[in-house]
Amino acid sequence: MNEKKSKIKFNPWDVEGEVNYDKLVKEFGVEPLKNLPKVFMENVLFRRKVVFAHRDIQRILLAARDKKPFVLMTGLMPTGKFHIGHMILAQQFPFWQKLGAKLYIAVADIEAYNARGQSLEESRKIAVEQYILNYIALGLKPKNLDIYFQSNRSSNAEKSNAYYRLQNLFARYSTFNEFKAVYGEITPGKMISALLQASDMYHPQLKEFEGQVPTLIPVGIDQDPHIRIARDMANRIKDFKFTPISSTYNLFIPGLGRGKMSASNPSSYIAMTDSPKEVERKIKKYAFSGGQPTVEEHRKKGGNPDIDVSFQYLKMFFEPDDKKLKKLEEDYKSGKLLTGELKQYTIDKISQFLEKHQKNREKAKKMLDKFLVN
Amino acid sequence: MNEKKSKIKFNPWDVEGEVNYDKLVKEFGVEPLKNLPKVFMENVLFRRKVVFAHRDIQRILLAARDKKPFVLMTGLMPTGKFHIGHMILAQQFPFWQKLGAKLYIAVADIEAYNARGQSLEESRKIAVEQYILNYIALGLKPKNLDIYFQSNRSSNAEKSNAYYRLQNLFARYSTFNEFKAVYGEITPGKMISALLQASDMYHPQLKEFEGQVPTLIPVGIDQDPHIRIARDMANRIKDFKFTPISSTYNLFIPGLGRGKMSASNPSSYIAMTDSPKEVERKIKKYAFSGGQPTVEEHRKKGGNPDIDVSFQYLKMFFEPDDKKLKKLEEDYKSGKLLTGELKQYTIDKISQFLEKHQKNREKAKKMLDKFLVN
Repeated sequence: MNEKKSKIKFNPWDVEGEVNYDKLVKEFGVEPLKNLPKVFMENVLFRRKVVFAHRDIQRILLAARDKKPFVLMTGLMPTGKFHIGHMILAQQFPFWQKLGAKLYIAVADIEAYNARGQSLEESRKIAVEQYILNYIALGLKPKNLDIYFQSNRSSNAEKSNAYYRLQNLFARYSTFNEFKAVYGEITPGKMISALLQASDMYHPQLKEFEGQVPTLIPVGIDQDPHIRIARDMANRIKDFKFTPISSTYNLFIPGLGRGKMSASNPSSYIAMTDSPKEVERKIKKYAFSGGQPTVEEHRKKGGNPDIDVSFQYLKMFFEPDDKKLKKLEEDYKSGKLLTGELKQYTIDKISQFLEKHQKNREKAKKMLDKFLVN
Repeated sequence: MNEKKSKIKFNPWDVEGEVNYDKLVKEFGVEPLKNLPKVFMENVLFRRKVVFAHRDIQRILLAARDKKPFVLMTGLMPTGKFHIGHMILAQQFPFWQKLGAKLYIAVADIEAYNARGQSLEESRKIAVEQYILNYIALGLKPKNLDIYFQSNRSSNAEKSNAYYRLQNLFARYSTFNEFKAVYGEITPGKMISALLQASDMYHPQLKEFEGQVPTLIPVGIDQDPHIRIARDMANRIKDFKFTPISSTYNLFIPGLGRGKMSASNPSSYIAMTDSPKEVERKIKKYAFSGGQPTVEEHRKKGGNPDIDVSFQYLKMFFEPDDKKLKKLEEDYKSGKLLTGELKQYTIDKISQFLEKHQKNREKAKKMLDKFLVN
């Protein structure tokens, strides 16, 4: 069975204006995320539907409810700076750990090597300094955690052999055309990385790891083709009985200018290491505004919070208080709240958040050893 | 640097009549094997130029002379029955071991899985029963030996990680067009197997194994494209300083009917487990003859030993006595020796050989444990 393939080529970076999520949900054959257990409402990302769709999440919810083993699997591409866009995943980790998940984090150093020509040493440095320290500062716990590098899976030979074996065996169950459909121009380096990524997603279910357990992979909606290609391979392989991976999908996190947050363009993001001054400068100068050109017009017509980047950041990350957020939204829409005022509120919120975060990140440096055992 | 690519597509199985080895040597850019040290003349395969060409053998000869470490690397495809054609490699193993080589033997179970759909379990069974037992019976020694399965490299995690890491890193230094030139129609399974094969060839030089040592790979001349593609990748990778692999090339071993020895066609080969009766039947019925259609004509014109399969088998494997072989050749050419007589001589020689071999193979079963440690 091939899963339903999308005919529209979804690439949010090329989309000007609104991303039609309803259409995406339909096209990709994923389900809207609704009727979640109460505990999910404690988490801003679920409560506000930043994580808005899923495939097969039921078996994850059942495992969590019945306190049965399940895995949260994710990966990181160790390039560039860790920025607020990365928080959308990082903030889900402690939440799922609390619900009982064993967490696997793959550092995609092989992919960075093959697709971007980055050395394994550089990848290790960036992974630790940019990603793992920030994960810890954002609440990641060392218990039930397996952080690993694709180039060096485990200090246990049986585990390493099993992981790379699966990569090699998956090759039999894929075609070049499938890879091309997902990756566009495909090279041997991209192809072998895609096969390794499929092993990343499924190897937790091997007997050398957790055995057959439900596995959840949280991704951005644009990453769904990667999920599908791995599901297809796993569905075809007869040597193992895999439970299809479950997945959740989050909204596109807009960059400051509403385009992509790009590591090569510091004015597109706020980094976790930015100073209050830097935050102020970036929000004032670059944050796309949903307000009107003049104060008079704004007072009369009101602003549009749905396209206002400052408001979106408050909604996704920095204003957990629903009442306050609602008030900001209403005041902005009515014209009572000016763009400058909304920006200043956002600057203050982000700066407070980052100040605390940066302290936590310093503390995290001393705990690193506990997180890098495998 | 791309090594010189052949414009002729060498496929000995499609060649009717003579294979032009001189032309092949030129086209492939390999060197004729000559001026070998005296010890090589003790080995039938080198003395009679069954192993007839090489790339960079000098550094192997120097290492052997100076008692410095070097590696003999080979692989086996665990399909079909072990037959006399496989002896050409197997008989080189103890010879090189005596000269000081550390021997690596890769069981290509991943390749058998991806290219032929054979399970890993089936591959293991065939590898042990058909190949390894016969290798032992033919003189393989357990000292300085590393027999491994591609799907399960080592019980040492550092070694396993290093081996599969190299496979993954090599991908960056290859293109689809190069693979297509060697493999024709290429699939993801064939491609990942080709990358694993390149790691087979070069991983002995990694610090987790022998460190940078000269490595020799003995192959059939038709396998040279595999050598070249691995050399090209190793030449481009900057993360390791590899010594280019050396290689030797052996002649095409004709099947009974002068075509390919094919596992799917038992009348094309003599298996190491064939009984004397079976040997007699196969040689009498299928062995291509260089003799004349009638006894009278044969007595007058003489036979052609160069195309006579029985004579070729005697020359390559079963008549180590040069004087006796020369006499047979002369008598056959002159017409003094009839085809029936030559065949009977060959049947007797092969049967004697196999009788002794089959006893050795029984003994080998008890020694197997010593050979499968890694």
